[in-house]
Amino acid sequence: MIQSWFECAPQLVDVAMGRTPADMVVRNVRWVNVHSGEIIPATDIAIAVGRFAFVGPNADHAVGPETQIIDGEGRYALPGLCDAHMHVESGMVTVTEFARAVIPHGTTSMFIDPHEIANVLGMPGVKLMHDEAAGLPINVFVQMPSCVPSAPGLENAGASLGPADVREAMSWPNIVGLGEMMNFPGVVAGNGDMLAEIAATQAAGKTVGGHYASKDLGLPFHAYVAAGPSDDHEGTSLADCVARVRQGMRAMLRLGSAWYDVAAQIKALTELSLDSRNFVLCTDDSHSGTLVDDGHMNRVVRHAIAQGLKPITAIQMATLNTAQHFGMERELGSITPGRRADLVLTSDLTELPVETVIARGCVVSNDGKLVADITPYDYPASTKNTVRLGKKLSAADFDIVAPEGANQVMARVIGVLENQAPTRALEASLGVLNGIVQMDRTGDVCQIALVERHHGTGKVINAFVSGFGYDKPCAIASTVAHDSHHMIVVGTNKDDMTLAANRLGQVGGGVVLFSEGRELALVRLPIAGLMSDQRAEIVAEEANGLIAAMLACGCALNNAYMQHSLLALVVIPELRISDIGLIDVLKFQPTEVLVATTA
Amino acid sequence: MIQSWFECAPQLVDVAMGRTPADMVVRNVRWVNVHSGEIIPATDIAIAVGRFAFVGPNADHAVGPETQIIDGEGRYALPGLCDAHMHVESGMVTVTEFARAVIPHGTTSMFIDPHEIANVLGMPGVKLMHDEAAGLPINVFVQMPSCVPSAPGLENAGASLGPADVREAMSWPNIVGLGEMMNFPGVVAGNGDMLAEIAATQAAGKTVGGHYASKDLGLPFHAYVAAGPSDDHEGTSLADCVARVRQGMRAMLRLGSAWYDVAAQIKALTELSLDSRNFVLCTDDSHSGTLVDDGHMNRVVRHAIAQGLKPITAIQMATLNTAQHFGMERELGSITPGRRADLVLTSDLTELPVETVIARGCVVSNDGKLVADITPYDYPASTKNTVRLGKKLSAADFDIVAPEGANQVMARVIGVLENQAPTRALEASLGVLNGIVQMDRTGDVCQIALVERHHGTGKVINAFVSGFGYDKPCAIASTVAHDSHHMIVVGTNKDDMTLAANRLGQVGGGVVLFSEGRELALVRLPIAGLMSDQRAEIVAEEANGLIAAMLACGCALNNAYMQHSLLALVVIPELRISDIGLIDVLKFQPTEVLVATTA
Repeated sequence: MIQSWFECAPQLVDVAMGRTPADMVVRNVRWVNVHSGEIIPATDIAIAVGRFAFVGPNADHAVGPETQIIDGEGRYALPGLCDAHMHVESGMVTVTEFARAVIPHGTTSMFIDPHEIANVLGMPGVKLMHDEAAGLPINVFVQMPSCVPSAPGLENAGASLGPADVREAMSWPNIVGLGEMMNFPGVVAGNGDMLAEIAATQAAGKTVGGHYASKDLGLPFHAYVAAGPSDDHEGTSLADCVARVRQGMRAMLRLGSAWYDVAAQIKALTELSLDSRNFVLCTDDSHSGTLVDDGHMNRVVRHAIAQGLKPITAIQMATLNTAQHFGMERELGSITPGRRADLVLTSDLTELPVETVIARGCVVSNDGKLVADITPYDYPASTKNTVRLGKKLSAADFDIVAPEGANQVMARVIGVLENQAPTRALEASLGVLNGIVQMDRTGDVCQIALVERHHGTGKVINAFVSGFGYDKPCAIASTVAHDSHHMIVVGTNKDDMTLAANRLGQVGGGVVLFSEGRELALVRLPIAGLMSDQRAEIVAEEANGLIAAMLACGCALNNAYMQHSLLALVVIPELRISDIGLIDVLKFQPTEVLVATTA
Repeated sequence: MIQSWFECAPQLVDVAMGRTPADMVVRNVRWVNVHSGEIIPATDIAIAVGRFAFVGPNADHAVGPETQIIDGEGRYALPGLCDAHMHVESGMVTVTEFARAVIPHGTTSMFIDPHEIANVLGMPGVKLMHDEAAGLPINVFVQMPSCVPSAPGLENAGASLGPADVREAMSWPNIVGLGEMMNFPGVVAGNGDMLAEIAATQAAGKTVGGHYASKDLGLPFHAYVAAGPSDDHEGTSLADCVARVRQGMRAMLRLGSAWYDVAAQIKALTELSLDSRNFVLCTDDSHSGTLVDDGHMNRVVRHAIAQGLKPITAIQMATLNTAQHFGMERELGSITPGRRADLVLTSDLTELPVETVIARGCVVSNDGKLVADITPYDYPASTKNTVRLGKKLSAADFDIVAPEGANQVMARVIGVLENQAPTRALEASLGVLNGIVQMDRTGDVCQIALVERHHGTGKVINAFVSGFGYDKPCAIASTVAHDSHHMIVVGTNKDDMTLAANRLGQVGGGVVLFSEGRELALVRLPIAGLMSDQRAEIVAEEANGLIAAMLACGCALNNAYMQHSLLALVVIPELRISDIGLIDVLKFQPTEVLVATTA
């Protein structure tokens, strides 16, 4: 833990005056000043007790015999990068391993919303990630999940959170606010619980995260703003971010592993020249492969610059702007006295090679290599073996029974769309054999099952899905199934579905692919069935193996695994599956798998 | 009192959706959008329960039979103006009367530091102004005075405040932070009390106001920043504001009645193109005459625009930037949903005629005329009759005795400088008559006395002053005498000095001028000897009478009265007077009036 500014102010003053030596002096940098918007050459930086004590043309007076000297060699010093909104679970690693992966990319602050683990483990899960975060050498602040489950009445998750939980969480030291308020129809309708969660957050003086995932910028949008969310990362178009900023929200522009929302919206700055202070960068969801191969916030800032944005503006959007948004500008986000001594040294302000990373006054990464000593966080037994199937599944659990005497049926089919989160509500005519509705592999209609896995009820909801293109006997099962995180099994034959589902029950969760009885890929996610306890590199390698196996079975979609894991997300149209049945997400109500009997 | 946003969010949402009518709809304005930096034409604004509920192209859906409609006629709607740092006492009126005077100028938020009354009445005085502020129809937030007395050890004020008082005040609802930390030498030296006051403020999550009144931008400046103050209004040069912003402070640019610090510093924006978000406008000190004749924050914004600043940027510096500085951007400073419905309608964005002012959803001023019904605040008896002289003064109380047998002495003389706050430490050779040192009217050396008036000790400190130019027999006495607010009497003859001092004791404080036994002018300030209980217009008229009387007695200085009232300000060089004697403010220690005996 780092001392408060006011606790160490006497030392900082002494160092600034030259009465006490600094712990570290970084000499001769080009100071990327996010307050003034300038690059100031030939600057020295003195650091003490984890905070900046002096930033000016000469820090010789702060150098003592024990002071660690770093020669900046005229490189740029920018504040450590901040991710304004993200879910650690998307990386399938723990907070600790996520930090280990992103520190070498220059990330020193993350604002995380642990709503995946909350859906599995409830408040204890949120508290664990909160406590894990507090022990890290970088700054990880937690947004209390607001919508667990995401669609009350349409699904049952492993836990349920409400206003009383939000009130409790607001007293935890590392909670910065409420996580994305996804239930925008509820907010706009005046839902008491949703408004009470917002009120509890505002009463605590904290930030209410928004999530207005709709193209409608008319009255519902205005009503959502009036309810209190203060940011939104769901904008995708130029009009979206302009509307949000005009209404006094901060527009969070998102570049995740599969979200590409920066290029269109950044035109608000590069073409419309709006005031940039209300624009913030974030990732929302990064896969471990992205973290290992491409980067984290450095990737987002670099991308923003590549869109024509001035480097200083792009850097502000991942440092000062973020800090100001969360009321933390006196704590982080700039290289100025009193703030946490988080900085990045880079020799190029466009490509942003991350050469040295300092967090709280300690060098944590050099030349892309982590040098901080980070203790793995030991998740308790209560977070393991959370895949409770209640029984050993058999192929018959996946049978969809036809109406008595039917030979052919018309069935509703979830239609997966390439590169889109929404699905289509399709229908298909399917054959019947021995009273059981059959899949249609040539027509790309296979089965999907949601296996209840939180309470061991043994319940299996079966339906049909199309669009993955599986052309071999196979099945893929995953305990990552947003947001309720039951188990979703998609397969072209029931024996492989059975093997896959039972295998995840056995290993405590993850993603597995079986084909003709053989396990082709397994990503072990023992923590809540969502996260590995391994390094990001290992998880990325396992995930690559899974993607290769999916491809080998005929699925060539971009982000095929993400498509799989979103099929239970009953807040996004049109047709989804949940533990209470097939869900019509246009009408927000359950529907039947079979439409009618034909012939 | 206005409800919290979260308390009335359900109503705001209902109004935005058209389910409930708004209280007021302002139609067809040009929306000065301080978030995006745009002017957006043809905008409607719906207001409910004192807050903005909807801002968009058409608010017809929010109009019900009882809704008050205001036709904006295409005029500009800008957020109500904010004064980021000011002392109400400088207007010599109460908070209520100050508000009454400035509302027609478009001011709807003031951040006040009641350190004058604190020097007289201590915590009860601060609490009174805090409570008075809370009852007003505009937003008045209080900064807890940090330096009472301003120079411990060099003066005794009517009260003394310390870290425990600061801690207590931080729990009062309308306290936004710590008032200007003037004791910068103490801060830089690591003074425990000063750092404890800053710590108490930061621990409460509030803003520490700065006051670094020095030209030295070297180590002491850096150390001051490292101690925690987050703004400063004492900058006067371009280098001053650039240095402050680079170090992560907000530069408050000041245009008071006698402070002209905007023009030089605004070049940081108009010429250097620094990021404007960290620049804020304020007045610090406005006389009632300025308020009546020239305006308040509208005067400052207009002046900034006249220096070449874009109107939208100047407006941001008196609205959004101020709100962000105090962590209140979700509460005020922009015309967006949820914020307090404070706005100004004007037909010209350069000259800023203030045509209509709305505060918390009510029209409070139209065409320069206050229409709000504001109840006068009744100050309790404990705030009156605070001029305790302990005795009736006589002319002999002003005698400066020469050393035995001396005919001529060399005396230290406070040298008043035109248009400057610092004084010079002069010396003059003065005659002796009957053992008493004589004034030298032709040499413009007259007497100054500090009369102890808080504790009735009867103590009178006598010295000499030069520079006022009084050429008639006269005396002027004032119980406004920054910061300790004893009584200062300056005169060319002792009979008039006696009359003036006793007169203020009789009326409970104010400013009075006597010449040859006649009272030529009196400004009555019965509240703490600092403030009138009358309207600003009346006080301004009385003050004009005083200035005319001073002129009639030969004093042609600009701001002669301000010069008079600053002669006990023992934190500004070079020579001042306090209740413990003549003070050498270069050495920060008392000194003798007489240097040596000559001839």
